Amino acid sequence: MPYVIVVYDVQANRTSKFLKYLRRYLTHVQNSVFEGELTEGTLEEMKTTLESMLDPSESVMVYRMASEKYVERFVFGEDPMDDQQFL
Amino acid sequence: MPYVIVVYDVQANRTSKFLKYLRRYLTHVQNSVFEGELTEGTLEEMKTTLESMLDPSESVMVYRMASEKYVERFVFGEDPMDDQQFL
Repeated sequence: MPYVIVVYDVQANRTSKFLKYLRRYLTHVQNSVFEGELTEGTLEEMKTTLESMLDPSESVMVYRMASEKYVERFVFGEDPMDDQQFL
Repeated sequence: MPYVIVVYDVQANRTSKFLKYLRRYLTHVQNSVFEGELTEGTLEEMKTTLESMLDPSESVMVYRMASEKYVERFVFGEDPMDDQQFL
């Protein structure tokens, strides 16, 4: 299944809108970074939805790998994923 | 050559330090996101350096792909890469 990394850069008072939307599908790994597996269909929907949510001067980057096995992840400093193991 | 995506989450008054360091090796693609090709040696050095630069509560994520061909990139909203074509 495709694996995606999503990073958004939006106005401070609008982050909660993006957090709320992305949390439905992906894991929150850093301040403005989400990642996880998505079907192609959900990914296409997400791209359309994210684009429609943006105000001028805001941006979102979506990185897509064919599978999680193509990406290796190194975290330095606080790893929010650690906390999530206990939720 | 390995392809990396680096995302940092640091205190606002310390972003310039990270910008300055990462710009030496990678392309600045969004507020706190860099990407580009790196040799394994430079990647190892970068991981060590980034870790040493962090204050408590700050973090850096490094995603590594074996090559750029394993990642597809979608940008919505303002794409800082567009500007760089004219620099």
